[in-house]
This record gives sequence, C-alpha cells and structure tokens, in this order.
Amino acid sequence: MNRKIKVGIVGLGRMGKEYADNLAFKMRAVDLVAACSISEEELAYARDTLQVKQLYKDYDQMIEQADLEAVFIISSTDMHASQMIKALEAGLHVFCEKPLAITVESCVKVKEVASRHPHLKTTIGFVRRFDESYQYAKAKIESGAIGIPFMVKAQTVDKDTVAEFQIKYVNKSGGIFHDYNVHDIDLTRWFLGSEIKTVHAMGGAFKHKGFAALGDADNVMTSCQLENGTMAVIIASRTAMVGHDTYTEIVGTLGTLRIGRPPGKNRVEIYDQHGARTECLDTFMERFEDAFLTMTEDFIDCIIYDRQPLCTIDGAMEATRAAIAFTTSFKEKRLVSVS
Amino acid sequence: MNRKIKVGIVGLGRMGKEYADNLAFKMRAVDLVAACSISEEELAYARDTLQVKQLYKDYDQMIEQADLEAVFIISSTDMHASQMIKALEAGLHVFCEKPLAITVESCVKVKEVASRHPHLKTTIGFVRRFDESYQYAKAKIESGAIGIPFMVKAQTVDKDTVAEFQIKYVNKSGGIFHDYNVHDIDLTRWFLGSEIKTVHAMGGAFKHKGFAALGDADNVMTSCQLENGTMAVIIASRTAMVGHDTYTEIVGTLGTLRIGRPPGKNRVEIYDQHGARTECLDTFMERFEDAFLTMTEDFIDCIIYDRQPLCTIDGAMEATRAAIAFTTSFKEKRLVSVS
Amino acid sequence: MNRKIKVGIVGLGRMGKEYADNLAFKMRAVDLVAACSISEEELAYARDTLQVKQLYKDYDQMIEQADLEAVFIISSTDMHASQMIKALEAGLHVFCEKPLAITVESCVKVKEVASRHPHLKTTIGFVRRFDESYQYAKAKIESGAIGIPFMVKAQTVDKDTVAEFQIKYVNKSGGIFHDYNVHDIDLTRWFLGSEIKTVHAMGGAFKHKGFAALGDADNVMTSCQLENGTMAVIIASRTAMVGHDTYTEIVGTLGTLRIGRPPGKNRVEIYDQHGARTECLDTFMERFEDAFLTMTEDFIDCIIYDRQPLCTIDGAMEATRAAIAFTTSFKEKRLVSVS
Amino acid sequence: MNRKIKVGIVGLGRMGKEYADNLAFKMRAVDLVAACSISEEELAYARDTLQVKQLYKDYDQMIEQADLEAVFIISSTDMHASQMIKALEAGLHVFCEKPLAITVESCVKVKEVASRHPHLKTTIGFVRRFDESYQYAKAKIESGAIGIPFMVKAQTVDKDTVAEFQIKYVNKSGGIFHDYNVHDIDLTRWFLGSEIKTVHAMGGAFKHKGFAALGDADNVMTSCQLENGTMAVIIASRTAMVGHDTYTEIVGTLGTLRIGRPPGKNRVEIYDQHGARTECLDTFMERFEDAFLTMTEDFIDCIIYDRQPLCTIDGAMEATRAAIAFTTSFKEKRLVSVS
Repeated sequence: MNRKIKVGIVGLGRMGKEYADNLAFKMRAVDLVAACSISEEELAYARDTLQVKQLYKDYDQMIEQADLEAVFIISSTDMHASQMIKALEAGLHVFCEKPLAITVESCVKVKEVASRHPHLKTTIGFVRRFDESYQYAKAKIESGAIGIPFMVKAQTVDKDTVAEFQIKYVNKSGGIFHDYNVHDIDLTRWFLGSEIKTVHAMGGAFKHKGFAALGDADNVMTSCQLENGTMAVIIASRTAMVGHDTYTEIVGTLGTLRIGRPPGKNRVEIYDQHGARTECLDTFMERFEDAFLTMTEDFIDCIIYDRQPLCTIDGAMEATRAAIAFTTSFKEKRLVSVS
Repeated sequence: MNRKIKVGIVGLGRMGKEYADNLAFKMRAVDLVAACSISEEELAYARDTLQVKQLYKDYDQMIEQADLEAVFIISSTDMHASQMIKALEAGLHVFCEKPLAITVESCVKVKEVASRHPHLKTTIGFVRRFDESYQYAKAKIESGAIGIPFMVKAQTVDKDTVAEFQIKYVNKSGGIFHDYNVHDIDLTRWFLGSEIKTVHAMGGAFKHKGFAALGDADNVMTSCQLENGTMAVIIASRTAMVGHDTYTEIVGTLGTLRIGRPPGKNRVEIYDQHGARTECLDTFMERFEDAFLTMTEDFIDCIIYDRQPLCTIDGAMEATRAAIAFTTSFKEKRLVSVS
Repeated sequence: MNRKIKVGIVGLGRMGKEYADNLAFKMRAVDLVAACSISEEELAYARDTLQVKQLYKDYDQMIEQADLEAVFIISSTDMHASQMIKALEAGLHVFCEKPLAITVESCVKVKEVASRHPHLKTTIGFVRRFDESYQYAKAKIESGAIGIPFMVKAQTVDKDTVAEFQIKYVNKSGGIFHDYNVHDIDLTRWFLGSEIKTVHAMGGAFKHKGFAALGDADNVMTSCQLENGTMAVIIASRTAMVGHDTYTEIVGTLGTLRIGRPPGKNRVEIYDQHGARTECLDTFMERFEDAFLTMTEDFIDCIIYDRQPLCTIDGAMEATRAAIAFTTSFKEKRLVSVS
Repeated sequence: MNRKIKVGIVGLGRMGKEYADNLAFKMRAVDLVAACSISEEELAYARDTLQVKQLYKDYDQMIEQADLEAVFIISSTDMHASQMIKALEAGLHVFCEKPLAITVESCVKVKEVASRHPHLKTTIGFVRRFDESYQYAKAKIESGAIGIPFMVKAQTVDKDTVAEFQIKYVNKSGGIFHDYNVHDIDLTRWFLGSEIKTVHAMGGAFKHKGFAALGDADNVMTSCQLENGTMAVIIASRTAMVGHDTYTEIVGTLGTLRIGRPPGKNRVEIYDQHGARTECLDTFMERFEDAFLTMTEDFIDCIIYDRQPLCTIDGAMEATRAAIAFTTSFKEKRLVSVS
C-alpha cells in the first residue's frame, strides 16, 4: 500500500517537464530518483525545481547506475525504441511517450525484447484514452448506448501559434501523421474494435509553406477502411486560430457521441461585441493535463498491482503501421493497404 | 375560404412598416386598403412601396371614410387606447400593438367599449406568444413535460446601439418597464397561470445617464410574487453589446425550459481568434420576424373564423397594471402590491 | 412590378406539395395555373387545396396545352432530364428539383437543349445554397473572414425513421450518393471554388440491411481531392436517431465556419432527467423550409428581372459526375477520378 | 520550501472526507496528523484509509493534545464558530467550512478572538472563488473586459436526489439561504465590490412539502440592492432533475460573463433519441472538486508564505448577515435591510 516505485526520467523538454512535475509532486507512490538530459538547463530544472538527486547526461549511465524500478522515456521520437530496449534489458518497467517509433521495424524490435521480459510492465502514452471524457465515451459505448459503432471522425488540431516552431521538428517527429494522428489512429482502433485496412490521405501546406519543402503538411485528411467494415476520417491541422481543437465523434447505429466541441478553455461564456463565445484551449497539454496525471498514476498502479496497462506495444505498433500508410498515401497520392 | 379582410393601418414608423409589409405582401386573406400617418415620408412609403390606395393624415378621417373591416394600430403608445376606442365605435376589429396603455384607467375605458361590441375581435400584440419556440415551450408545459411550473426568469434585452435613440421616446413609451417588460409580464402570466401580486423593482442608468434624468433606467430587475405562490424575476436592459438577447426560462418540478440562449443570428458558428462563437441577433424584429407574421395571420383568422384571439384586453390590462407597479416600486424603492 | 408568372408543376408527392404550397400561397408574383401528376390523390390535392384550374395526368399534354411561362419539375429523379428537355423545347423556363440526372449523358443532353434556348432561365434546386445560414457563411468567406478555405466537411444525415421507406426508391433515386450527397458536392464546389478531382468512397448497410441487397448503403463516407489542391470529406447517413442532422464545416487559413450543429428544432433547450438538451429537426424539409421558399422566389425573380440563377445546369452536371464517381468508388473499392 | 504543516481535521462526513483525502493524499506540504469525529465509522476511515495516527472523539482533546499547527473545521454548521474560537485560542491557524455561523453574534465573537491573534491565518471555505472558471471570470472583470459590472444573477441548484436527505439537516444548516445562497452572496459581493443593502426573498416548498413544515423551502429567489447601486438576483433550488446546476452571470456595461451553463459532466455530447444533449453534473462536489483542492492548497500556502487568505472572517460575517436578511424577508414577506 505504501510502496513507492523508484523512477527515472529521460527527456525534460516541454513534455518531459510535465511528466516530471507529475512524478515529483503529485503522486504518492513514486520516488523520482533520477533524471537524464543532454541539456544543462533541463538538468538544472531537475536538480533545483524537482529536487532530483541523481542527474545524468548519458542515458546508458542512468540505466546502469541509478537505483531504478521504472523509467519514463520522454525524449525525442527517434530515441524512443532504442531507449526502451535498453531499459527492458536492464530489467526496468517502461513508460514511453507516443509514438513508439516511426518505423515498424523499430516497433518489432521493441516487441521482441519486451516479450523476453514478460514480468516488466510496458506502455506507450496514448494519453487521450485516459481523459475523463474519452473514458466516459468508451464506457457509454460498452454499455450499448449508441448501438454498434461504425464510424469515427477524429482530429488533432493545434493552435496556429506553434506551427512555425514545429517545422524544425518534422524530421525527428516523422511528420504530421506520426506526430498528430497517431492519437486518432489509436482512438479509432479502440472505439471501432478493429485494425485499419486501407487508407487514402491528402493534404497540403496551406498556410505555412515551410512544411511542403520537408514533404510534410500543415493540414491533412485521411479516410480509413477498417478490417471489420467500419470506417473513419482522421484529420490533423497545425493552423487553427481558435486554439487546440481536438475532437472525436463516434457514430453508432443508435446514437452518436461527440467529444470536445467547442474546445472551451473553461466554463466561462462571454457575451460581448464579438458575439456569444467561449475562449478556447491553447494547447494539447492544457486540454489533457488531467489525463497525463491519470495515465501516469495508472502505469504506476500497473506496476504495484501487477496489472496489464491499457496501451500496449502491439497497439503502438499498429498505430505506427497506420501512420506510415497515411504518410505513404499522402506522398504517393494513392490508396494504401496498411498491413 | 377566399375571403379577404379589408385592413387599415395607423402608424408606419419602424414597427408599423414591418406590420404593413406583412399585411401588404405576405398574407393572402388581407387587402391593405388604407394607411394613416402624420409623416409625409411614411405616407409616401404606403403609396409607393405598399401601393396602398387610400392615404390619410388624420386617423378619425380614415376610420370614417375608408372602407375597412379591421384596423391595425401601430402608432405611439400614448395613442393606442383612444384610437382603439374610436375604431371599436366605428365597428372595426382592432389589432393594437402592445402595450395597450400606460394607465389602468385607459385600459378600463377600452375594455368598457369593447364589451359593448362583443362581435368585434380585439387583440394586443404580445408577439412573443406567437414565436415558434415560445409556442413549443407552452405546448411542452401543457403536456406536463416539466411538471408544475413555479418560477420564470425572463428578460428583454436590446443591443446597446438603440439606447441613445430611445431616450427621446421615454415619455411616450412610459419607460423601460412598460416598453420592455410588458412582454415578460405577459409571458410570466401565461406560463405560470396566475397574476402578479407583489413586486420589488430596482435598476439604474448604468451606462446611458440620460435615462436617469427622465426617471427611467437602462437596466432594471424586478422580483415578482404571483397570486398562486409562484415567482418570477424580470429583467430589462438597453445596453447589451452582444445583440438582442431576449430570454425566458421556466422552471418546473420536473424540468426546466430555456428559450433563447445564446441569441444566435443563425446556424453559423465561427471558430477564430475570438474563440468559438455565434454572432447574435441585432434587434427584437430580427428575433421575432416570423412571429409577427404568425400573429398577424392569426388575428385575421380570428376574424374570418370567428375565433377568440389568444391575447385579450383583460390580459393587456393586467400587464399594464403590473408594469405600473414595477415602475412605482423602482421609483419609490419599496415593495408594491399590483392590485 | 406587378407581373405574375404563369407556372405549372409536375409531381405533387411529399416534395412537390411543398413547392406547390409555396407557389400557390406564399408568392405574389406567381399564378400556379396547372399541375400534373399520375396520382389521383395528388390531382385532387391540386384541385381542392391549391385550387389549381388546369389538371393533367400527362406531362406532354400540360406542356402543350396549358398557358405557361415556367414549369417546376418535382417528379422522380429518372424523369427530370426528359421533362426538362420537353419544357425547354416548348419555350418554358424550367426549375428542376435536384439531381438533374443520374447519368452525365442525360445532363449533357439537357445542357445541349438549354444552350439552344439561352433566353430561357433554368436552374436545379440545390436548396441549401439558399438557406440563410449557408448564405451568411458564403458572404463571410467572400469577405475574407476565414482566409483561404481549404477543407470542407459536409454531411447530409436523415432521421432513422425514413430509412425503411427509402429502400424502395433506391433504384429511381440513383442511391445514397446521388440522393443525399449531391447537395454536399454542390456546396463543396461552391465553398472551395473548384471541381472534385479524385474520390475515395466507402460505407455499408450498417443498420438497414435492405440497402445492401440493392448495392446501396445506409451510411457512406467519401474523401475528395479537388482540382485546386483543397479537400473535402462528405458523409451521408440514413440512420440518425437524433433527427435530420445536416452539417457543413468550412476550414480556412484564418478560421472555421460550422453550419448546423446541433440541429435544434427551435430555440428551446430542455433541462431534465436526460440532461441539458435540444430536441432536433425531424426532416430535411423542416430544416430548409424557408430556403425552399427563398429559392423559389429567387427563380421567379430571375425570370422577371432577367437575371442568371445561382445554380446552373453546368453545376448540376458536375455534381452528377462527382456522385457517379462516389458510387463507383464505393462499389469498386478504389480511388476514382471524376473527369 | 519543504516545510510540512501539521494539520488536524474535525468532521469526516461526506464533505469532511473530501477535505481529508485532499489533505492526506494530494498535498506535499501537509502532514495530516490528527482527526476528530464522534462517529466510529469516520474514525475508522481516518485510521484505515487516511492512515492518520492521532484519533479523537473529543474536539477539545484534539486541540489540546495533538501536535498541530492548523485545524480544518468541517463539522456541522452549528459547531463552526465555537470550534474556531477554541482553535484560535490554542494558537492554531484555522480553515473553517462555510458558513462561519448562522448568527451574526457568533461571527462577531469569532472575529473578536481572531483579531487578538493576528499572526494566525483564518479563512472560510467559499470554494467557488477558487474554481478555475470563477477565477478566470474575476480576472476578466478586473481587466475591464465587461466594463463596470452592475448586475449578478446567481444560483446554487442541487439535483433533486439529495432533497429528501437534506430535510433532516435544515435545523442545523440554518435553512436554504444559509446552506445554498451563502456562496452566491459571497460571489455577489466579490464581483460587484459592494455589500448587499436591501433584500426581497420569496419561495416555497414546491416539490418536497417537508421543507415547508420546517419553515424552509425547496426553491427560493431573492432580489438584492447593493450599497453601490448595483443589483443581484440570487436563486437556490433543491429540485433540479438535470443535476447540480450552479450558475453565475455577471453583467457589465460592456459585456456579460456566464459561468456554468450547461452544467455538463464532461466534454461528451450525446446525439440520440432524446436530442442533442449533455449529461450533467451530479453534485456540488463533482463540480468543484478541483476548486476544493486549490482552496486547500492556497490556505496552506498562506500559512507557509505568510499571506492573507482571499476569504476573510469579515466577508463571512457579511455573508451570514445577508443570509439572515434573506431568511427574514422570506419568512415575513417583506423588504428587509441587511445592516
């Protein structure tokens, strides 16, 4: 009951700091004992704000030297797979921020290593599954409230303000389908209970031309046929003026659930010269702040109570496989099979 | 079936023109044969746009000379009662724009004359009762959908743009309670099925100081106890930036109906740098345009099919009685009995 | 100014009656002088309710014998093209309910005949363009309010109650893409200012299996790439429990417009044991009732004032071409080029 | 930085457990060292679930014996004042759940004792001030976003399910005005920056007749005139079917802020046979769960950083004074001055 899991974290950028704050300040069952970053500023944050004792510039060193039971990998996407493998081989439970990897080969390697350590808990951070509203929707669906779900409309839409900043991360992140839609892909699989079979993607750099030069886009749309005959349309945008406008609609034979519209910042509505309006969420983090904590707590509980995490390496591999198909379809302007 | 009622109209100001347009262009069972106004511009409108043949500067003359079956009185409030009496005595059905009068004495006189002409149809234009949404709410309540209604929250709220223009009409209109809240009073009586017993009003000239000098206000709020133990809060505002924001909430033992929020102009929602928003109605007329036509058609039907109009002189008198009590309570800062 | 256009109508089914009521009762510039139907009941309606004098069982006879200036074709889809051609050759202006035809060949024939009668006004009833909210959205876009529009999400969604009834009309209507999405196709072309280039459609008979046997579906989704690089996702459903839930979203570089959500019946909101809710529209007709009148008035104005109608035969042909591509893509499970 | 405040709590009923859970599990700067209750079940909860070491049946004993720096008083309303006085005299910082007392005399006594211990932090738990949306609204107002605020419409509305349960607490709680509206009173003072001067209250036991026998009501409405000329209408209901429907609207010369409508449970909207709807909050606690934690953290911060709490004894006394006036006005059916 009072057991505390000794945790290390790698990566203390914008996202990593959020995880670290949760681990350091908001969870009774965690001791955040070690942190790793190549950035001096990030290590100073760990030391001064998080009061983490053991600081590392080198990930391998942390894995070897620190007294850890679990590691949180919040580094850049291209590091996820190899760091996860090293952690597993060192006997650590692993939480890895999504996406697991941008190639299926990397996913397969992780899976292979994980399968040799079945006692270690592993999960990939598909945080939207842990959001209160998504959980509510899932429970509704399982209770039969909307009959048989057969269509998902999903989008991950960021406020325009971060777009220019993101251009330089395109290469590391794998592009908009891996970085944004991997969430929607995971939710589609979860809500429709099937894998994506064929996809048709399109899009463009409609506003920030810099994405085009990198073979990426600022707005994309993909239609998906699933194995079980159901269907989905998945959208991503980097250019919303209104704010972070992530939204999911699940249509069933008896009803529809809509999650996230309008993307209001809070319960305040303003009536003024601009009309009747709600100011909207700025960021993904603002939207899913509570879900990040819930997800982190859930993973620690999985370790303590020997329970299987909701988000698996298999699922993450399927999501990557689909994101690759989206990307191929977008680039080659053709229908693409996922498998 | 093909009978046409010969109608005259007095008053072709902003409101009168709306009525006249409906009478002239949108109703198959009406011949708009005469119009009366002291304004040359208004008479020119009647002649050129409405193509009305018989034009009068003098109301008495129209009543005597024109070949009429009914008259629509859309003149200034201070003329309503006397013009209605003259029309009744001339054997005409009468539609009179609200309020009937700003003194109970005037109402009593009209009632007395009307009672001597029981075959003539009379009504006062409490237009909100004819709005599709209000009618729907009334039917819902009568079906028992919200149990026993025991509280009304009602407001008539105009966009700020017309406030300065209204200052010069305060004296003729009887002030904000007669001009705005008479609608809410009528609806309260309709929804709660009882008369208002005691009232407590307050308010001020919070934005347009000119109203204070005239003993009027730009924002007022009145709490009402009804004879049957139910209650209401009735608000009026001349200063909304958002637009015309008329709203009514009826609370019952099993549910609540809310009519009119947000006061969106149409079914378009805008997502932009101001948030997720709806542009709102500009005017009372924009909000109730359809209801004005429905109400006018209904009155003509009452004549043709010998049916009693929904809004009666008695009701209008009670509304005036209450508006006077509101005004007195506001001016004397005390609880006032209506009867 | 006071000119009245002599109009005949063919088809007095559910839709035809709506048109006929507007033509007979709500328009000052129309004389509905003739009606044609193969149904005795419909002719009786024309005679008794509409008080139309000249009644025909045979369309050719009406065209030849009745004293007409214009004809409204509201018959079943398979009759549209040939009836339109006959009317044009008889020198009549023609209003034709959408879709013009379900083959491009038929559209081409109509176009060819129309081009030989350039003085005759022709239009196809894409009614949604005349809805107040769609018009408002179009004006907003043209004013630059959302920057450059680059994505449309559109759906035509009917309440489940009519689905079983529709099964028997699948063959005549051309199926769900022609019957439902032809509106969305037209709107997509209008809002994005380009033609649809390639499409990928999918769907199924998820609830009413009877559609599957006819090669049709009760829910479909199509992704579209347009000539100018923009994109659209177009959905149709016959199975909504909530009501008629037609909806369009236009995304631009500076903002998004959303038209139609939630599809509330009126301005009443109910708070009760089911939550905070709005009862929704039952039918397409309930949603677009005003737009049908506006569109009909507009066409008569086009005749009177010698103005070109907004919806052209060319546009209708493009819509048919796209609907055919949707259908092919759905049936053959492949990407299809429209041209 | 790492200082922990030693805290005791009295009262572990429904509300007390919420506070205790926050103190025990969610705050790094607190050691919950002692708990007091007359209930064996509650003490067992403290021992087993909260793992509190020092348990007391007697409040005086806890104050004397336990090693405390601060006490949280979450007992029944009639105990608040005396327990607060004892704690202050024992040199403890005090957090007291609202209302401070149901007589002004009790408030005055507390104030007098507190004034003799100026170094001790005291606050009364007006939790709604700490809700994210209320804080946002307050900041908006202070930024001038709605000009000068001059009207508040506020309500505290509970789901009907708890009404019968509440009947037996009427005597201890002081009735609906003290128990429900004291929040709205506090918010009105906060948003309008003035004290309530005169009030007119009314209401009834419209659904649960048991309240009438106790001189209480299940629905009440009070109009308030404030010292600075502004106004408020304050409503309470125990009978909402929709759920906990607490709502506040602040009207200013340039705009209006509305907080809390609809009272959706989360970001899920359901489209089904009941319409387009949102399921609503069940309880006050569900609505303000985060605010309770924020408020508790804020009070601990006030102790640690020697800062004055936002909610003062003076404010609580004014709220009690107003709630008494509401009650008197309701019982005596007259206008009542607060001072």
